[in-house]
Amino acid sequence: MKDFRTIWLNESGYVEVIDQRILPHKLEIIQLRTHKDAVDAIKNMTVRGAPLIGATAAYGVYLAVREMIEKEFDGNFLDSAFEELKASRPTAVNLFWALDKMRECLDKSDNFLADSLSQANSIVSDDIETCRMIGVHGLPLLEEISLHKQGKTINILTHCNAGMLGCIQWGTITSPIYQAHLKGIKVHVWVDETRPRNQGSNLTAYELTRHGIPHTLIVDNTGGHLMQHGMVDMVIVGTDRTTRNGDVANKIGTYLKALSAKDNNIPFYVALPSTSLDMNIRDGLTEIPIEERDQNEVKYLTGLRSDGQIDSILICPETTSARNYGFDVTPARLVSGLITERGVCEANENGILSLFPEFSIQSI
Amino acid sequence: MKDFRTIWLNESGYVEVIDQRILPHKLEIIQLRTHKDAVDAIKNMTVRGAPLIGATAAYGVYLAVREMIEKEFDGNFLDSAFEELKASRPTAVNLFWALDKMRECLDKSDNFLADSLSQANSIVSDDIETCRMIGVHGLPLLEEISLHKQGKTINILTHCNAGMLGCIQWGTITSPIYQAHLKGIKVHVWVDETRPRNQGSNLTAYELTRHGIPHTLIVDNTGGHLMQHGMVDMVIVGTDRTTRNGDVANKIGTYLKALSAKDNNIPFYVALPSTSLDMNIRDGLTEIPIEERDQNEVKYLTGLRSDGQIDSILICPETTSARNYGFDVTPARLVSGLITERGVCEANENGILSLFPEFSIQSI
Repeated sequence: MKDFRTIWLNESGYVEVIDQRILPHKLEIIQLRTHKDAVDAIKNMTVRGAPLIGATAAYGVYLAVREMIEKEFDGNFLDSAFEELKASRPTAVNLFWALDKMRECLDKSDNFLADSLSQANSIVSDDIETCRMIGVHGLPLLEEISLHKQGKTINILTHCNAGMLGCIQWGTITSPIYQAHLKGIKVHVWVDETRPRNQGSNLTAYELTRHGIPHTLIVDNTGGHLMQHGMVDMVIVGTDRTTRNGDVANKIGTYLKALSAKDNNIPFYVALPSTSLDMNIRDGLTEIPIEERDQNEVKYLTGLRSDGQIDSILICPETTSARNYGFDVTPARLVSGLITERGVCEANENGILSLFPEFSIQSI
Repeated sequence: MKDFRTIWLNESGYVEVIDQRILPHKLEIIQLRTHKDAVDAIKNMTVRGAPLIGATAAYGVYLAVREMIEKEFDGNFLDSAFEELKASRPTAVNLFWALDKMRECLDKSDNFLADSLSQANSIVSDDIETCRMIGVHGLPLLEEISLHKQGKTINILTHCNAGMLGCIQWGTITSPIYQAHLKGIKVHVWVDETRPRNQGSNLTAYELTRHGIPHTLIVDNTGGHLMQHGMVDMVIVGTDRTTRNGDVANKIGTYLKALSAKDNNIPFYVALPSTSLDMNIRDGLTEIPIEERDQNEVKYLTGLRSDGQIDSILICPETTSARNYGFDVTPARLVSGLITERGVCEANENGILSLFPEFSIQSI
């Protein structure tokens, strides 16, 4: 796998991605030869994570251009490819953003094939660079703890997967961890399994294994106990949306870990690309709508049977109903700081504007 | 099933229990005809929960007496039956206590069969009465909230199973809930699934279903979000051991819910029989040893396959290792009160001694 990325071009110029639906049990590479393959990969969640969805859509446009030229289709083909890609995940902001970029590029292009490829490549390399810089700025926080512990292993707790698997490379919360590891700093990660979809046990544990990072899987209930007993030095989580005031929406259960970190004086950081900042809202608790998902994600769990088959099992009485909230909001008062591609800042308006002064005009 | 109890005598005077290993997917009654059957039921976790283990052992002695008489064995048979029962779960305090009671009874008996049965029955009826009284004293707390909400449904969150399935009838935290329901107070229970062993989704959801109590299953990550949004009126949990200072050891994850209840001004109560009070220790965090269990309880999960078979599936990379702490300690400062068989008290030494003055001599 090319440097362990989540999306790449093969020798024939076709796109390849990891099938994330069957991780960690099977590693299968899927080839995308047409824009329809890209649509399917996004739709059926072969790929997930905002940056990776955006990148897949961008390459999907490039594949459509290629097909159009090879088969001598007219411009209508390209228009409907855009529409199909746009409809593949109706709420993914990053998808629309990537498609707009591709459209802009084609609008002023006289070499569709070369330009669409180069624009898609640049969307991908921008994401890689953003994630790398989050690591560059987060690394000193880990170095400081390591120094304070006189080189003993740093224990970092994380929730969900804000790793490279949702991005292209590096990931957000994993970027400082991978960079610390490469520098020889001893790190160990407590991986919350992150029910109901278990992105921790399925994805974070998988990519840490691939990178050779020592880690231990725990159920989501365990973090408080570990923090009470000095077994966690730092918490880092990702975010889907962070408000102007520094309130952080992230995977359900993040708030409980933040409370526990506060109660035990443990730093709680949020790693994010600035594209996750929503400067148009202030109060995360009242202004961020929380997605409710299918109750079967709670009632059933997917894993590997002893006969090697991937299967789903029912884990409660069949008649019991469940509620499945996807996210919760951690109030800014519980957040030690935001780690962004431009530096680390306090989780409040002044902190954010000190790094991103261009957002000040959007004052609300 | 006789009034939905967890253990009872059938028409032939044999003992019957529910096979709790396959709940909620299958309801199977197991007949115990000899003390060896009782030993097996305890050992292989057909029965679980301190009071139920004690009761099973007590009836096990009665079954041994019966067998001894029927088969004209001598007293050695009874002695070895006691030993086998004692060794069935080596750390179960309640088991030893029940066996001591049975031994004391037989030591002064001239009618082994009648007296062993009557002593076992009385151990069982004492537990039922204790649980009933926890409900009697807890009920006014629910009535008050119901009044305050002008009769609207009270939402109670609980973690793990401190219900009737671990006891004989009523249960501890479920006793006030069942009594409120019987009185016509509208209750709804948020059931934490309680990873890793899922006692919430397997047992609490099952017994609430059986009692007709409206309830909703949630993953352990969800409680904080619900509390932030006014969807929880009260938290009630059980305890394995509560200290003289009111620190509460309970299933891993309880502490996180207590923090969240505090952060959102929601009452957090602990329901317990006084036998769970350990007046010999004060500081729960430093003095209560926390059991570590098999990592496979985290890495694998058991449930019902679509073909009707109960199976275990792997939910992480095979090489990933896990840690599995069974309990955590909720500091007394986060506990609104203790609901006991003698009344409700503050979670501190004065509170406990106000209800149980006999413990004051054990001052430490």
